[in-house]
Amino acid sequence: MTGDAKPELPLGKERIQAGLAKSPFIGFLGLEVTRADPDKNEIAMRAIMKPEFERLRGSKQWHGGPIAAIIDTVGDYALVMSLGRALPTINFRVDYLRPAIDTDLTAVARVRRSGKSVGVVDVDVLDDKQNLVAIGRATYSTLPA
Amino acid sequence: MTGDAKPELPLGKERIQAGLAKSPFIGFLGLEVTRADPDKNEIAMRAIMKPEFERLRGSKQWHGGPIAAIIDTVGDYALVMSLGRALPTINFRVDYLRPAIDTDLTAVARVRRSGKSVGVVDVDVLDDKQNLVAIGRATYSTLPA
Amino acid sequence: MTGDAKPELPLGKERIQAGLAKSPFIGFLGLEVTRADPDKNEIAMRAIMKPEFERLRGSKQWHGGPIAAIIDTVGDYALVMSLGRALPTINFRVDYLRPAIDTDLTAVARVRRSGKSVGVVDVDVLDDKQNLVAIGRATYSTLPA
Amino acid sequence: MTGDAKPELPLGKERIQAGLAKSPFIGFLGLEVTRADPDKNEIAMRAIMKPEFERLRGSKQWHGGPIAAIIDTVGDYALVMSLGRALPTINFRVDYLRPAIDTDLTAVARVRRSGKSVGVVDVDVLDDKQNLVAIGRATYSTLPA
Repeated sequence: MTGDAKPELPLGKERIQAGLAKSPFIGFLGLEVTRADPDKNEIAMRAIMKPEFERLRGSKQWHGGPIAAIIDTVGDYALVMSLGRALPTINFRVDYLRPAIDTDLTAVARVRRSGKSVGVVDVDVLDDKQNLVAIGRATYSTLPA
Repeated sequence: MTGDAKPELPLGKERIQAGLAKSPFIGFLGLEVTRADPDKNEIAMRAIMKPEFERLRGSKQWHGGPIAAIIDTVGDYALVMSLGRALPTINFRVDYLRPAIDTDLTAVARVRRSGKSVGVVDVDVLDDKQNLVAIGRATYSTLPA
Repeated sequence: MTGDAKPELPLGKERIQAGLAKSPFIGFLGLEVTRADPDKNEIAMRAIMKPEFERLRGSKQWHGGPIAAIIDTVGDYALVMSLGRALPTINFRVDYLRPAIDTDLTAVARVRRSGKSVGVVDVDVLDDKQNLVAIGRATYSTLPA
Repeated sequence: MTGDAKPELPLGKERIQAGLAKSPFIGFLGLEVTRADPDKNEIAMRAIMKPEFERLRGSKQWHGGPIAAIIDTVGDYALVMSLGRALPTINFRVDYLRPAIDTDLTAVARVRRSGKSVGVVDVDVLDDKQNLVAIGRATYSTLPA
């Protein structure tokens, strides 16, 4: 997702944040990298609630759409951090566990497998009280472009 | 998703479009109902490409996030059309099949099962040339609120 | 899954049935190829209920386990039919729609995308009355071994 | 899955093992409960390799089918342990991460959410060397029968 030629690996928080900035849609999500831990193969990002994310006008409840998009994106960067190149999503699943109302969200992604052709990542999405709002599981192509 | 008390069922295109308008996030997606066929349990909506959906600035390629959100939303309304009430998403899966570049998208949702507690819907997402861009499979709670 | 060197493609019903016979677990499932249609990228197989498949002893109800295994296997052969080599499953999802009681099952698999590295297949599982019992969506690696 | 009237909850290892014994298909899988931890909402079971599970005759490699069935079953009992009644699977996803060859398997299931109508469970499947072979994510109906 970074488009850079031969960046130093693993990517640090600033490089990842700079990569995010190249995508208008990720800009809409407003993701901020809060933790990048290549030793644990984990990354965390934070998203601030804004009116455009609402399910119903005035409800302060997150629509599931931006939550799914956050899962896809943060999961991707858990692999990008170590591999340093764009990784297309093959597929992902999201399970919604609780409504997210009047809260920011933190997504924590952890690589479960990084193989030669496929990577698998789990993503937990937490609200301000550390309640689990949604969980994602995503598969990305790790083949060289 | 409509929030209306006892609408006449099944909902027609206009009622569904009015329901969509209550959601700021769906407004961001800009979905237009193009077909509502309660006999076939099918519904179709169209989304116009806009710069905020881009994966990389200037690429005209759809980010996967809005595609996933479209699948979740159009799948939901395939059931809402007949049931007339908000149906929370339990979970969904999206498979990305081809890049969607410089094209609008049409999502066609078909109910596979509408049970007392769970509904299952398949969603195909097509580009302007009728190529399959992504497919979704989603599960919604059909329990009365 | 066939292990044969350079079989004539697409594989016909007999070749596919012979491929199935090399797997003890598929032997346990007892799958019979009933249709192989490479033009439509569809294949169908039939499984006969037997006591070992029961969820509860004497219930004549299929446990979900063999249904999931049938989906994985029949989905795989929808691609094997045209590609002629073993294709490892990357992941799959199964949704159970109705109990399957005192019935044989037919699984119909249809290729949704056969790409250079990934193939995606949908599988419908029907009972003797053509009711939909379960649906599967599976992703396989199509990379040359 | 137990079929018992009002068992004492949470179920202990012996009660769970007795519940498993009522299912011919689970008998085929040969699952042994190795840990039942209701405080952590975790349960673990072990399955011994046998020739009927082989992908190809003589390969000693597990077919994906029994692995998927193990995930579905062990995930179910992570909820049954606390709820004490049969819980139909709504859907599940399995990701295969590595071949499982000449090894027994241990499945560890952890409840991620146990709601009024839906429960969500994650299942990790490990080989004898503690390598992750497959991961599952399953949704069950927790509605009273």
